[in-house]
Amino acid sequence: MLTGTRVTIIGGDARQLEVIRHLSELDATVQMVGFDNWECRLSGVRHAELNAETISQTDAILLPAVGTDDTGRIDSVFSAKPLVLTDELAKTASPNVHLFTGMAKPYLRTLCERHSIRLTELFDRDDVAILNSIPTAEGALMITVQNTDFTIHGSRSLVLGFGRTGATMARVLQSLGSKTAVMVRRPEHYARALEMGFTPFYPDSLADEACRADLVFNTIPSLVLTANVIAKLPAHAFILDLASKPGGTDFRFAEKRGIKAMLAPGLPGIVAPRTAGKIIGETLSQLLVEDQGNGRDSS
Amino acid sequence: MLTGTRVTIIGGDARQLEVIRHLSELDATVQMVGFDNWECRLSGVRHAELNAETISQTDAILLPAVGTDDTGRIDSVFSAKPLVLTDELAKTASPNVHLFTGMAKPYLRTLCERHSIRLTELFDRDDVAILNSIPTAEGALMITVQNTDFTIHGSRSLVLGFGRTGATMARVLQSLGSKTAVMVRRPEHYARALEMGFTPFYPDSLADEACRADLVFNTIPSLVLTANVIAKLPAHAFILDLASKPGGTDFRFAEKRGIKAMLAPGLPGIVAPRTAGKIIGETLSQLLVEDQGNGRDSS
Repeated sequence: MLTGTRVTIIGGDARQLEVIRHLSELDATVQMVGFDNWECRLSGVRHAELNAETISQTDAILLPAVGTDDTGRIDSVFSAKPLVLTDELAKTASPNVHLFTGMAKPYLRTLCERHSIRLTELFDRDDVAILNSIPTAEGALMITVQNTDFTIHGSRSLVLGFGRTGATMARVLQSLGSKTAVMVRRPEHYARALEMGFTPFYPDSLADEACRADLVFNTIPSLVLTANVIAKLPAHAFILDLASKPGGTDFRFAEKRGIKAMLAPGLPGIVAPRTAGKIIGETLSQLLVEDQGNGRDSS
Repeated sequence: MLTGTRVTIIGGDARQLEVIRHLSELDATVQMVGFDNWECRLSGVRHAELNAETISQTDAILLPAVGTDDTGRIDSVFSAKPLVLTDELAKTASPNVHLFTGMAKPYLRTLCERHSIRLTELFDRDDVAILNSIPTAEGALMITVQNTDFTIHGSRSLVLGFGRTGATMARVLQSLGSKTAVMVRRPEHYARALEMGFTPFYPDSLADEACRADLVFNTIPSLVLTANVIAKLPAHAFILDLASKPGGTDFRFAEKRGIKAMLAPGLPGIVAPRTAGKIIGETLSQLLVEDQGNGRDSS
């Protein structure tokens, strides 16, 4: 339980509603900032303004998936009012405050360092990234079916990268009957991909593999789908880039060659906000319970 | 090979283009009727008009998925001109002509009987129906991801019917991590569903199963999702009816209760016309090769 823990949720989207519900169930005291258009009747939850009073009287702050932009602005789909986390505001935070976000831009990192605010980037955690790979893969299936005139079943697909998202994507494609090859760098990933029934290959074979690919899913956040590789793809191939912006695809060249290529980061919040919110809510509350424990130990 | 076999394709959509390509590869002589907007440069393929000359000089005719409407009209997305298979035209067909369509309405059946035209409904065949269940299931996944805010993974799904489409749908859902229960009528289907790791149940338990369902996929072409059953579903449940029109769902009651329910027949041609065309093309050419063989035997 989170009885007595004060959490402030600033901005966000449908995912935050699930987080608020979850925190309320665990008896946390929740302040919502930037949810003007949302009527909430959950126990222990109230609306608040973004000011020194709100910030100074909280144990934890949750910002949206992308914490702030490069000027401190926080997105909220439930409010038209601008929300900005300024240096002045950050200064008022309690010394033990714990700030959570999906991923932090340099502005937020610098702000937290300057004011010794503990910052946790949830999407960086392996558990969150693996759980988020599930809605990502389902969203990728949706986009693939929408954008191709052939079935995934019977196709040849390439998955670039065998990390938290790549492994899920490969498994899902294989389970739908696609012949799935996986590009890996590490020999232990090569071995695991082989064990799982995929066709593993190293980056130096990518151009060769591209000749036979109907579908390409990239999860590597650096330029891997170069003009050289794209030139080898069959004309009907479809590229879906799941890596963080700007992705790992030479989109300009793909367009020039007439190969359909799309960048689709942030799928969990789009295709399954309820599940994505549950993932954030459960992880956040676990971490808050740990904070409580640590607080008790040191008191 | 189909050298010497004369096939007339009347109307249709993107699927027919794949069929035409396939027949051309097998050296058939192909006449296309109602493809005015499609430039074709395949060997042995030419445009033709819908008249007695065209109909009388052909060994086989392929009509679209739904052969004709109740007045004999044939759909074509590649032509604005109306195409009507009249009684007068049908009379001119050669006595050995073999007419193929996806499924025939009473008009077409009566016409074929009256003029002793051999009629084959391709979608009725088990092989075609099983192959078509693949794009159907992928289309169903797409629609489900689009229309829910939670993942298929971790959900509870019900598949009503364990025939050609139901079995594929259940397998695909299970492979994506949904806990899948299957409604069956026959004890051998119960046993098979159990063996495959599903939770089988008989129709008298449907209302009980409905209480726990997040997703419901119907494949039975008669009213199974009655008001009684829909009343038991949780408010967030999503119903996708894959049975032929009008489906097996009380859509009026679903709407009244605020439960999202959609009818989505004919998915293969929509989500994967190339694959769906390949299925038709390969089956058609097999049957035409058999016709050739039979012709030789009796000559």
